[in-house]
Amino acid sequence: MTDIAMTIPDLHAAYARGVSPEQIIAQVYTRLREVDDPCIFLSMASEADAQAAAAALGPYDPAKPLWGVPFAVKDNIDVAGYETTAACPAYAYTPTQDAFVVAKLREAGAIFIGKTNLDQFATGLVGVRTPYGAPRNSIDPEIVPGGSSGGSGVAVGHGIVAFSLGTDTAGSGRVPAALNNIVGLKPTLGALSATGVVPACRSVETVSIFALTVADAYTAFTVACAYDAADAYARHISAPPLSTPKSAPVIGIPSRDSIRFSGDAVQEASFNAAVDLLRGQGAEIREIDFTPLYDVADMLYEGAWVAERYTVIEDLLHKDPEAILPVTRQVICKAEALSAADAFRGMYRLKELSRIAETALEGLDMLCVPTIPTFHTVAELEADPIGPNSNFGTYTNFVNLLDMCGIAVPVPARSDGRPGSVTLLAAAGKDADIAASGLALEAAGKRNLGATGWPFNGTPTLEAAATDGLILAVCGAHMHGLPLNHQLTQRGATYLGAATTSDSYRFYALAGDPPARPGLVKGTPGSGAPIAVELWSLPFEKVGGFLEAIPAPLGIGTVDLSDGRQVKGFICEAEAAADGTDITQLGDWRNYLAQL
Amino acid sequence: MTDIAMTIPDLHAAYARGVSPEQIIAQVYTRLREVDDPCIFLSMASEADAQAAAAALGPYDPAKPLWGVPFAVKDNIDVAGYETTAACPAYAYTPTQDAFVVAKLREAGAIFIGKTNLDQFATGLVGVRTPYGAPRNSIDPEIVPGGSSGGSGVAVGHGIVAFSLGTDTAGSGRVPAALNNIVGLKPTLGALSATGVVPACRSVETVSIFALTVADAYTAFTVACAYDAADAYARHISAPPLSTPKSAPVIGIPSRDSIRFSGDAVQEASFNAAVDLLRGQGAEIREIDFTPLYDVADMLYEGAWVAERYTVIEDLLHKDPEAILPVTRQVICKAEALSAADAFRGMYRLKELSRIAETALEGLDMLCVPTIPTFHTVAELEADPIGPNSNFGTYTNFVNLLDMCGIAVPVPARSDGRPGSVTLLAAAGKDADIAASGLALEAAGKRNLGATGWPFNGTPTLEAAATDGLILAVCGAHMHGLPLNHQLTQRGATYLGAATTSDSYRFYALAGDPPARPGLVKGTPGSGAPIAVELWSLPFEKVGGFLEAIPAPLGIGTVDLSDGRQVKGFICEAEAAADGTDITQLGDWRNYLAQL
Repeated sequence: MTDIAMTIPDLHAAYARGVSPEQIIAQVYTRLREVDDPCIFLSMASEADAQAAAAALGPYDPAKPLWGVPFAVKDNIDVAGYETTAACPAYAYTPTQDAFVVAKLREAGAIFIGKTNLDQFATGLVGVRTPYGAPRNSIDPEIVPGGSSGGSGVAVGHGIVAFSLGTDTAGSGRVPAALNNIVGLKPTLGALSATGVVPACRSVETVSIFALTVADAYTAFTVACAYDAADAYARHISAPPLSTPKSAPVIGIPSRDSIRFSGDAVQEASFNAAVDLLRGQGAEIREIDFTPLYDVADMLYEGAWVAERYTVIEDLLHKDPEAILPVTRQVICKAEALSAADAFRGMYRLKELSRIAETALEGLDMLCVPTIPTFHTVAELEADPIGPNSNFGTYTNFVNLLDMCGIAVPVPARSDGRPGSVTLLAAAGKDADIAASGLALEAAGKRNLGATGWPFNGTPTLEAAATDGLILAVCGAHMHGLPLNHQLTQRGATYLGAATTSDSYRFYALAGDPPARPGLVKGTPGSGAPIAVELWSLPFEKVGGFLEAIPAPLGIGTVDLSDGRQVKGFICEAEAAADGTDITQLGDWRNYLAQL
Repeated sequence: MTDIAMTIPDLHAAYARGVSPEQIIAQVYTRLREVDDPCIFLSMASEADAQAAAAALGPYDPAKPLWGVPFAVKDNIDVAGYETTAACPAYAYTPTQDAFVVAKLREAGAIFIGKTNLDQFATGLVGVRTPYGAPRNSIDPEIVPGGSSGGSGVAVGHGIVAFSLGTDTAGSGRVPAALNNIVGLKPTLGALSATGVVPACRSVETVSIFALTVADAYTAFTVACAYDAADAYARHISAPPLSTPKSAPVIGIPSRDSIRFSGDAVQEASFNAAVDLLRGQGAEIREIDFTPLYDVADMLYEGAWVAERYTVIEDLLHKDPEAILPVTRQVICKAEALSAADAFRGMYRLKELSRIAETALEGLDMLCVPTIPTFHTVAELEADPIGPNSNFGTYTNFVNLLDMCGIAVPVPARSDGRPGSVTLLAAAGKDADIAASGLALEAAGKRNLGATGWPFNGTPTLEAAATDGLILAVCGAHMHGLPLNHQLTQRGATYLGAATTSDSYRFYALAGDPPARPGLVKGTPGSGAPIAVELWSLPFEKVGGFLEAIPAPLGIGTVDLSDGRQVKGFICEAEAAADGTDITQLGDWRNYLAQL
């Protein structure tokens, strides 16, 4: 068997073709042996156990978004029966329960492979602060793997697993993405449960997700994102299906005077090229002064927040200080000099800086920053364990303190072959917005996936699914989370992604009994507006039964999409629509429902 | 001149009759001399200065909501040119600028009278922790005045001023209200600017408002509530006009097992009677276990938050420890033993308790608690300066830590003559909801205003204004903050309050040019729904000009209110309304605008 590219659509297309999950598990372990880096995983499912988990999935179930998808877990997140070490042997314990997010992923069909190496207690951005030996960067062994979620980044970079969990306070979910040519999705604080996660900096951290593509990272996010009342820091954050990004977003970048590349002209050129891609996609770019953001960034390790890390290791530090790496002790023990009054003064200062930053960010839809200002080698870190680490945090440290969400997106490789990466950042809760923009951005440039050599395919889902069923555009109650969605999922339909119609459509809320239904009525080009639809692949044999259940005035016809494609989809008789309410200006059935 | 009751409607009715603000200022100072308590104010405008401020107002301007209304300011809030002491002479400074909120109140026509005594550094709930001598309680000199905003509570209790500013962390804006038979409005954190306020516990405190009636406290709140970008803790909180309270609110009270009265059966009976009043107004009362709320309350002085107070006095404490009262030092210096790690542990614990409290409060519109569990005398405080103070905080300490808003509302006097008081509490941002319920509650029982002997008049505004103009119900663009409101205010109309129509009305958004206009069409009783209106008093001589500007299909006719009253107001021809959108179910024009 040729290797299947480790993306969810590729795996699902393979499963639909009859490939078994056992074959995929075999690929995982073969690849792991080929990579031959014993420092990626700190503990693993045996191949036999992973095969058993694959076999236990039963027949392919496309309704499970992660069915048969192998994943890895940073070793500060619990997986039942596997030691959680936080890269500190003296701290280790063996949990009997999966962390909340791990349980969610497994329920959706994901297959656990192993626990990954990290900077001890998730303190670091380099990936070499571990007593277990550092994993090698997946692209270039001379550069550091990145941290603290180093093993998780490398495992995805090599295509061993399709996605992995990290955690992110300072940038641990983004820096390894930049260093391994992969995607790092850092959700809004509180979106993913912290139950079963070893805290680092509890008030400003989150579980994060690495994957080879934006779509895959976001799919795992939508599965993992569920409110957990047992986590005091949990918030109600929504993870809607991805939609088309805003057409002319206003994107802030660091001003010429405040941008920092540590003298790395190649990184600067790569960033400028990425900004040009955004501009080419219609973004308005505004340069802003990043000084207030750097000021916030400095607070994370220079200010009171190291005391959060101290609360985690305090007991161990008193019992067995040598159990903790010298560099980790050096960083965290600064907290011993800080009083409660200092902690509050730090919070006041953060509030004040946040207000200044808020003003600086006014009118922007998002920020785009280099994920890292430059690269650092393992040798540099051996010479100076602190300086290069701090430098990596230039564009990441301020993000959680300012309650923003972010996604590190691979862009075309630099002129020297090192990976290109920018991070899109926005206010809390805008995870879907930046992911949609990230999806468009990664598709704009040519690149390979991670270190694998698999080419990135801009629209893999649609192509892969086309062979398996009828692609159908739905615009109302059949969409994700809405009352008739089960008519699709019960028939084994697979979600392909969000799209919009051409601007020839007017959109109506039809009169009649619940559930409320919309009607899409085609006119001349420009007479309507682009309307949000979801694309689903419905097994051909199920189309008849599905069609039978559709009442007048609706039917299935051909729908023009805004990207020029034509797909089958719901259409509506014009006369009946006239009795309804024209909601074209809302552009999306969910917007209409939201205002009822 | 007989004394004018010190409420805003009574003052404004007097001004409309031709009474001058100088006459009111004379009354203020005469009353102050009669009360003869030198410890209420720490510094004052001279009578001549206050007279000059009154004269500078020019002719009566009913468009200014606080025109000619005398007020006092707690002496930890800046008034330009007057010393700010925070009740600590060694800390004193003389500001050159008004605090943000003071400036707002003066812009609206309020007249500054003096700076009021307080528990030093706003640390205390008793009002006797001051080196300047404690003010006497306005009702009974044996009981403490309450604190920390003691002077502000007493000044209003005596009817010297119509309202006063306090501050509230633990309950300083509510406890003095309970002890002086007045209203204490504690806004949502961040609603009122802290610029120009000496901090006590910056992350969990707010400026607060005392007044003799709920309507007056809320009027001052609406004037003071404006976003101040210079205050890092400011939030965007709205202060809409009061509307009719929710018809059958679900109100939580402490369960029999968890309610605390320190053995005071009279207080218990008074609280039960108040709950009966709420029940009589249609509330569904639910008993809830208050243990998690008490656990939160304990954190304020037992936990890390005293370190916030420590940041305020630290410099002074090192330079001149004797400048700080022993009891204040005793309370605040506990912070010296607390590390930054302790501060974060405290925040984690608060987050966890908040989650438990959140669960306990699920499904409730608001809470109703006794403002204080019992009364404490000056003698008791002399014997034990800490215990009774802590006891006062039973139902107040948890409120800011849980980010709730509250309003202490006077209820009929207890059987022993001491004032009755309950506090309504709700989630952040629900200031208008609890004020509306407080308005109904204070009108449900007979009482006098503060210590004054002036009877409370349930609908003072409507009665007072009726003599001055035509009472008009407006339901659309003429309401506060909407595009045609100036047609009323430019004609000198006075806002009387919010009301609703009977349920005979259907409500339409009319077709036509902007500004958007609604139409109210009367049918049979029950064929429509109660629609929100605002009542305004329009000077009779201005009615003609106003009517002339009203286009078809609107006119002025008679409108039935839900309380049985009939007033003049906007009506609409039915046929034209049929072309519009029926928005009856929205109940309020603002709701319609909000969804556009």
